Amino acid sequence: MDIKELSLKKHYDWHGKIEVISRPKIENKEDLSLAYTPGVASACLEIEKDIDKSYELTRRSNLVAVVTDGTAVLGLGDIGPEAGMPVMEGKCALFKTFADIDAFPLCIRSKDTDEIVRTIALLSGSFGGINLEDISAPRCFEIERKLKEICDIPVFHDDQHGTAVVVAAALLNALKVVKKTLEEVRIVINGAGSAGVAICKHLMNMGAKHFIMSDSKGILCEGDERLNKAKREIAAITNREHLRGTLADAMKDADVFIGVSAPNVVTQEMVRSMNEGAIVFPMANPTPEIMPDLALAAGAAVVGTGRSDFKNQINNVLAFPGIFRGALDCRAKCINEEMKVASSYALASLIPDEKLSAENIIPSPLEKGVADVVAKAVIEAARASGAARK
Amino acid sequence: MDIKELSLKKHYDWHGKIEVISRPKIENKEDLSLAYTPGVASACLEIEKDIDKSYELTRRSNLVAVVTDGTAVLGLGDIGPEAGMPVMEGKCALFKTFADIDAFPLCIRSKDTDEIVRTIALLSGSFGGINLEDISAPRCFEIERKLKEICDIPVFHDDQHGTAVVVAAALLNALKVVKKTLEEVRIVINGAGSAGVAICKHLMNMGAKHFIMSDSKGILCEGDERLNKAKREIAAITNREHLRGTLADAMKDADVFIGVSAPNVVTQEMVRSMNEGAIVFPMANPTPEIMPDLALAAGAAVVGTGRSDFKNQINNVLAFPGIFRGALDCRAKCINEEMKVASSYALASLIPDEKLSAENIIPSPLEKGVADVVAKAVIEAARASGAARK
Repeated sequence: MDIKELSLKKHYDWHGKIEVISRPKIENKEDLSLAYTPGVASACLEIEKDIDKSYELTRRSNLVAVVTDGTAVLGLGDIGPEAGMPVMEGKCALFKTFADIDAFPLCIRSKDTDEIVRTIALLSGSFGGINLEDISAPRCFEIERKLKEICDIPVFHDDQHGTAVVVAAALLNALKVVKKTLEEVRIVINGAGSAGVAICKHLMNMGAKHFIMSDSKGILCEGDERLNKAKREIAAITNREHLRGTLADAMKDADVFIGVSAPNVVTQEMVRSMNEGAIVFPMANPTPEIMPDLALAAGAAVVGTGRSDFKNQINNVLAFPGIFRGALDCRAKCINEEMKVASSYALASLIPDEKLSAENIIPSPLEKGVADVVAKAVIEAARASGAARK
Repeated sequence: MDIKELSLKKHYDWHGKIEVISRPKIENKEDLSLAYTPGVASACLEIEKDIDKSYELTRRSNLVAVVTDGTAVLGLGDIGPEAGMPVMEGKCALFKTFADIDAFPLCIRSKDTDEIVRTIALLSGSFGGINLEDISAPRCFEIERKLKEICDIPVFHDDQHGTAVVVAAALLNALKVVKKTLEEVRIVINGAGSAGVAICKHLMNMGAKHFIMSDSKGILCEGDERLNKAKREIAAITNREHLRGTLADAMKDADVFIGVSAPNVVTQEMVRSMNEGAIVFPMANPTPEIMPDLALAAGAAVVGTGRSDFKNQINNVLAFPGIFRGALDCRAKCINEEMKVASSYALASLIPDEKLSAENIIPSPLEKGVADVVAKAVIEAARASGAARK
């Protein structure tokens, strides 16, 4: 049985990947009167007096909503809200497994950005944080921006920022391997959806300066009529040489290739055209932009993909559990740039110099303690930047 | 320490009364690839082809949302959405404890009925059922009605229908004790909020014919200008003698008093004015309309309250876990009148004739197996009435 068949069988067996349990035991009349009426009234009245008590007297302080509209699920596209739920439940299972966070999956039966924003905002008193997931670009940018303005709890679009944090961590270590700096390298990002744009902005925040973004139609260049608002914005701050052309043109003399696009769109020829010490992260799932063995044979110095069966797996699960653990623990108002940058450095630090090599730039997604290290860095950054409430 | 102090202390210790856990163990790369990417895609695609598969491949078939706007929490009134959450979490704990249902608490930061309806409807693909809770009357009637029109899953306002089901069960057995029939008795219901109106309608569905409803301003009578829409509707189908006056006037020669109103509004004199074999259910919480010892001393034949420290506790927890268990198990489209009536008879049947007495008309809320018996009756009624999908 291949992985797809086996997973489907497992899904029938699991009958849902999350479960909601009761923390108190309710076995006798006293239990009932303490956990429910009449005793519960005292907890209600405490929160009425001070809403912040909801973080102590209900589960809110450990609760994250994992929300989708089902429009960009994995690489499957717009498959509908209910069909996105196996991914949301999986995400919730990972939150619990890696960071002991209670995450609950919600799908929204609307594609209207304002309606999605309003729905989530109205529910935000039930949660300590909001994880947006698998919402198509460019809608996801607007939804996240509006929610951040309205909500008093952290809102985080993992497809953007989780990916960016892990890519940056991997890149920090890969640059050490090839002895280059973030400031000097020429970076090509193929794929200008939510992940590509977020990776670019995050690397800029960390000091990278030279970017070319491309999508399936070629290099993004300021003034190009075909671009949507999000792509126009990113075109205006990248590609300052106003290069036009194909992905192959972009990759010539580049130091870093980051792919969040489609299978097999990068050839060995393109990798050969890159500078010496090329870093190649073809992260399309399940089939990368170029297979690692081909990239290495074409002269790439460091290769990382999204897949667990190759070296250097660049996987969001390294970031989001620890980021939310940290944000919840210091009751952060938001997850700001400082917290994301700190997460990347914390993740990179998990590979000490003596273990660092072209084949080991990033911890395994299953390595114990990753979330703790990320959470600690997030809390420090939140406090230093004024985002922490405690 | 009294119950309120102890409950508050416990709430600080519990740090939330619900928790979301992962059903699969995720310990190695294979686990990760089965529960999450890339394996999870196959479950997504199955649901995309057939939305009904969401009941098998996600937790939906066992998931109920417990939703409030915080406007009528216990007897505390409009204390706000966050302050209502300890009750919602308690309810979720009871769902799990008594019927192994995964219930998740959601509070909505709006009092606008249309906005509440829209929010819940947009989330309904995430759940197998919706339990509305502690929403003030008459808004709760409109919210429930509209949601039932829109949603393809059961919507149930427990303060109305759960209460009505349990009161009716207790009344069925009390009538056996006093040897009267539902059809012949004169029933006074004091309190014309969500519970009072629902009790009246449910007892009508079961065959009761003679009702007088009253509220804090006296008997509800058709044509009375002061009544809101919900009260006008119920006035038009009760009190056919067009009696006007006080609660005391209403109770004269009544056979049954049902109180869902306020503490100590019933005197011994009023109970004395009732017919022989009077049934008195003063259910205001925590202080009943009249204390049971006073009602009995004034000649009441059977007394039941909402409290656990007196005989005959009339508690919703006897109904909602089994009703939802049944509705989920047969994938009911709704919870209709037939299912509610069947629940009342099933609950009443749990006291066999040989154990029936004035002091034993209803099972204890903690009695094992109650939910199973109710669920079985609900499934049968759902199938017979065409509400069941399987």
